[in-house]
Amino acid sequence: MRFFSDNAAAACPQVMEALTRANRIDTAYDGDEWSQRLDGAFSDLFGKQVRALWVTTGTAANCLGLATLCPPHGAILCHEVAHIEVDEAGAPGFFTHGAKLTLLAGEGAKLSPDGVEEACARVRDDVHQVQPSALSITNATEYGLSYRPDEVAALGEVARRRGLGFHMDGARFANAIAFTGADPADLTWRAGVNVLSFGFVKNGGMNAEALIFFDPAAAEVVPRLRKRAGHLLSKGRYLAAQILAMLENDLWLTNARAANAAAAVLAKAAGNRLIYPVEANELFVRMSAEEVATLFEQGFDFYEWSPDEVRLVTSWDQDMDAVGRLAAAIEAV
Amino acid sequence: MRFFSDNAAAACPQVMEALTRANRIDTAYDGDEWSQRLDGAFSDLFGKQVRALWVTTGTAANCLGLATLCPPHGAILCHEVAHIEVDEAGAPGFFTHGAKLTLLAGEGAKLSPDGVEEACARVRDDVHQVQPSALSITNATEYGLSYRPDEVAALGEVARRRGLGFHMDGARFANAIAFTGADPADLTWRAGVNVLSFGFVKNGGMNAEALIFFDPAAAEVVPRLRKRAGHLLSKGRYLAAQILAMLENDLWLTNARAANAAAAVLAKAAGNRLIYPVEANELFVRMSAEEVATLFEQGFDFYEWSPDEVRLVTSWDQDMDAVGRLAAAIEAV
Amino acid sequence: MRFFSDNAAAACPQVMEALTRANRIDTAYDGDEWSQRLDGAFSDLFGKQVRALWVTTGTAANCLGLATLCPPHGAILCHEVAHIEVDEAGAPGFFTHGAKLTLLAGEGAKLSPDGVEEACARVRDDVHQVQPSALSITNATEYGLSYRPDEVAALGEVARRRGLGFHMDGARFANAIAFTGADPADLTWRAGVNVLSFGFVKNGGMNAEALIFFDPAAAEVVPRLRKRAGHLLSKGRYLAAQILAMLENDLWLTNARAANAAAAVLAKAAGNRLIYPVEANELFVRMSAEEVATLFEQGFDFYEWSPDEVRLVTSWDQDMDAVGRLAAAIEAV
Amino acid sequence: MRFFSDNAAAACPQVMEALTRANRIDTAYDGDEWSQRLDGAFSDLFGKQVRALWVTTGTAANCLGLATLCPPHGAILCHEVAHIEVDEAGAPGFFTHGAKLTLLAGEGAKLSPDGVEEACARVRDDVHQVQPSALSITNATEYGLSYRPDEVAALGEVARRRGLGFHMDGARFANAIAFTGADPADLTWRAGVNVLSFGFVKNGGMNAEALIFFDPAAAEVVPRLRKRAGHLLSKGRYLAAQILAMLENDLWLTNARAANAAAAVLAKAAGNRLIYPVEANELFVRMSAEEVATLFEQGFDFYEWSPDEVRLVTSWDQDMDAVGRLAAAIEAV
Repeated sequence: MRFFSDNAAAACPQVMEALTRANRIDTAYDGDEWSQRLDGAFSDLFGKQVRALWVTTGTAANCLGLATLCPPHGAILCHEVAHIEVDEAGAPGFFTHGAKLTLLAGEGAKLSPDGVEEACARVRDDVHQVQPSALSITNATEYGLSYRPDEVAALGEVARRRGLGFHMDGARFANAIAFTGADPADLTWRAGVNVLSFGFVKNGGMNAEALIFFDPAAAEVVPRLRKRAGHLLSKGRYLAAQILAMLENDLWLTNARAANAAAAVLAKAAGNRLIYPVEANELFVRMSAEEVATLFEQGFDFYEWSPDEVRLVTSWDQDMDAVGRLAAAIEAV
Repeated sequence: MRFFSDNAAAACPQVMEALTRANRIDTAYDGDEWSQRLDGAFSDLFGKQVRALWVTTGTAANCLGLATLCPPHGAILCHEVAHIEVDEAGAPGFFTHGAKLTLLAGEGAKLSPDGVEEACARVRDDVHQVQPSALSITNATEYGLSYRPDEVAALGEVARRRGLGFHMDGARFANAIAFTGADPADLTWRAGVNVLSFGFVKNGGMNAEALIFFDPAAAEVVPRLRKRAGHLLSKGRYLAAQILAMLENDLWLTNARAANAAAAVLAKAAGNRLIYPVEANELFVRMSAEEVATLFEQGFDFYEWSPDEVRLVTSWDQDMDAVGRLAAAIEAV
Repeated sequence: MRFFSDNAAAACPQVMEALTRANRIDTAYDGDEWSQRLDGAFSDLFGKQVRALWVTTGTAANCLGLATLCPPHGAILCHEVAHIEVDEAGAPGFFTHGAKLTLLAGEGAKLSPDGVEEACARVRDDVHQVQPSALSITNATEYGLSYRPDEVAALGEVARRRGLGFHMDGARFANAIAFTGADPADLTWRAGVNVLSFGFVKNGGMNAEALIFFDPAAAEVVPRLRKRAGHLLSKGRYLAAQILAMLENDLWLTNARAANAAAAVLAKAAGNRLIYPVEANELFVRMSAEEVATLFEQGFDFYEWSPDEVRLVTSWDQDMDAVGRLAAAIEAV
Repeated sequence: MRFFSDNAAAACPQVMEALTRANRIDTAYDGDEWSQRLDGAFSDLFGKQVRALWVTTGTAANCLGLATLCPPHGAILCHEVAHIEVDEAGAPGFFTHGAKLTLLAGEGAKLSPDGVEEACARVRDDVHQVQPSALSITNATEYGLSYRPDEVAALGEVARRRGLGFHMDGARFANAIAFTGADPADLTWRAGVNVLSFGFVKNGGMNAEALIFFDPAAAEVVPRLRKRAGHLLSKGRYLAAQILAMLENDLWLTNARAANAAAAVLAKAAGNRLIYPVEANELFVRMSAEEVATLFEQGFDFYEWSPDEVRLVTSWDQDMDAVGRLAAAIEAV
């Protein structure tokens, strides 16, 4: 019974069917009909003309996006546990040709407007110091919290004032939308976000993520950067088809709601063991080594985050029976 | 009737079935059972312990490989029409952090040992000049020729003498093996090749290529480079499963033979219009603008390579009836 | 008797005196009074508001300049024997983060407008091919020829039409001005040049070169790039003072004329041994191995360019007596 | 009366004389007699065969050195106020092609062995996290403290155990030696340091710093990196001559002692206003805005480090009379 990572989940049936439908001769790269429909589909979703590109990983989406917001001699402000800092093997440094990540603190992996403002204010405006160029937040955060539209907007306001490009790592954007019920536009471009990495893989996709530019003109160079990074697949239709399948009938939202619902059941059971409120599909739970051992023995599989803390992640296809058993087991230990 | 590019072809049924079989919960990244079997499968094929990694594009395979062979201050010797020079948007410069491509001439996009030797000899061994560090050839070449094992070995000997790492871009490696009947080992590591980009996408795969290191120790850093470039997919099992499906029962060879056979039919029809011998699945054919127009009118689709030259590419799933009709049409114009 | 390289020459007395005068406490980096006067001094010389920065090498000047004209995914068109291609150890790749040098042929290391136009026309405007972004010429060229203003303007016109930034490597700009008698403005910005590396070291300086931006706005990022490349000296006044000393009373021109005059004496002696017209301070002379040996025995020191060709370089401080003796010796062999 | 920065000081007379002596024709780049003597001179000083190269800035020395210790996908551990982090405009990211600086805390800008050990222990050894590759300390530190040999050795031991290359930014190495009286060998290679940036410019030089490799084999690639970064001056003799002049008769030590002595006078006057012990030529002194204003009025010039803190820096040529007056003034406010 797997609560280890949403990356371990299968691809959902609609994605598999879309791959089958797309399995025919078509134009190579992104000249095919599915790829050509991406801009329109996301423009509909966000209520605004956007530019949308497929890539195969969240790291590629994040770093291609950041490369358009930050020059090699600039800095990207992010949380000290941001995925781009902690889990991307230095990819931001690679894609930006050496830009710096400036790390900020913040409860629950969230950034605060004051924190960003102070980080900017600390930098002398001279040639000796790397100047902040971009701001990156993760939503839902690495600790499973969801930003509300007004929180994003407050950060967007600092970004605007300080001349920072604003990127959102939305590996679990669907879960944030599902939890907050926010309009996708309110959580992004209306709040000042310039670029969004919109995750699908953790949410039932196979290997397609979307990179969204809310100003299409700012995306002009991105197809070149994508190709130069080896990320332009020759049979791109199989990526585009996955994404379109998940946009259809708001499948992305249905899947995220299912994952969140499973998390909510576990959250209730975990009660005051919880380190952070559960606002998406991740739980961080205080648990002793013996308690962990007990759960492992019962066949539950999850991540030991630190000596007395575990991480549970639920997926779109989580078996609710197993969820119920884990909930009971947590209450029992 | 499509003769435009083998990138336009569909994925073959065995690949689709493999995706379905792999569609279940498993370990993320490359910890799954399929990914773990790659080293063994390719070691069997090449008769030698190798290290094999999946990536999604030939550009990524080529450039990750080259990055292990050439430092930022080195040069890679390649043909002036090599894919890495002409069609990868500068990706070698990105992955190697600025290494130089030194361009050599050669009939049919083939390099000669003398050409490589002369290029090395021209470089002064001082700090002002970029020193050659790697040699890269494409097999089958960009003009559809296949190197024979002794040709590769002669290049390998120069590489060894000059201290060059030796890379083979095998986007159509299968077609070269199918045409020459060579043992894969003889065409690669026994001939001095260190790194091979083994293409599957043009040959019936969906989006998985293999990067093969014939010295596993030399590959140690590659998983980090792959992750840093955003090429470590979180659900890697879907890539590994494709490759394993194509290795099973030599499907890769069966597919390549089919594509080559279709090309051979067209080659016979093209006769002395052919600019190069047809030794894989690409044909370069002299043809006037009117002749081209005539064929287009008949519903044939292909690439106008230059004002009086066209490129025809056949695929693993080429409709042999259409091939016959195109052959007849070429003979008729 | 040294005819090996103008890099071997001493610094001229006025430069040494300027260093002595500058040897006092002042503001660090480029905040000192000398550095602050550079923009004005060069604006006077070029009859236009320019931005001028000191650096210590021609390679740094060239590559910082090119980095402002060409993105990492772009190409710089230059001659196949351009210093940036042949003698800068891949520095353009380093400073531009991997941009490509596209090499053009051309008599006497000169580029032609047609050659540049054709090189641009050969590139498909798609994401697979690296797009030309900049043009770089050397004046005087690596073979000692000087572009005339109309030649530069014709290249500038192609650059403008093709959207290429235009850089001039002026390591021997002074010699070109001295030879052609052209107005510095006519040979640069009026002819479309955007950035000039203005050499002083080969012409009697110690270790200061000037990097000139004819559009000050385009130079905004350069101070950051210079610092990031470790080229912002903490006691910059010693560089600025050298340059100002050489601008005073047109010392740069006087020095270049002296070097050119010495070359002219040798050119007359070399007669039809000359491979290129002598239009600056370099001579390329056909000479057999025995003839070379004879001259070496007589105490002349120079560069054996190829088996039957030598390069002679004259300097601002060339001993005219030695020049006369070499001229006689050349005529005698 | 300047107490702003040791970068503002003049070059010392012996350096000026050395430039005059070197002002003659010689071999270009680093082929001259002075440059050729550097390895020997520093090998004598350190009691060990070393490789020594001149560069013009501390940033270049630091970053060329670090580039040999840390791959693009690695991390360099340093103090959070290290010059490479705070004042080099991202140069480490440029020279290493994107490596990461991992920032550690520590009193007085000093690192502790435990801090380094903990930073290493925090990193998971997988491909997702950037692995520590190098350790860099500054001696004397940015807050004017000097490491003792046993402190360096303790860090060296962690570096050895963790497989980290060990770099020392010795912009004020002379001041640290002068203060501690340590043998240069004990403070560097005997304590595990691999690479030293040995500063001369702040200590009476004009524009030459030395980059020392204690294992000459590890320096093999450095001349290429130096050239590729535009740091190989064509008339290198003027840099080498400066350094040799400062090594002669231990002038570097004499100059550093003079600067330290001036700082000691001020330290005594500052008494318990001092934020850190004064162990080199920098003082950090608590001082209210009014007190600062008073001193400014009296003609003293220094850096306002923070609202209630000033930095005073003394130089090799500090006027001891002015020092006495400042000391008196500090006691008086």
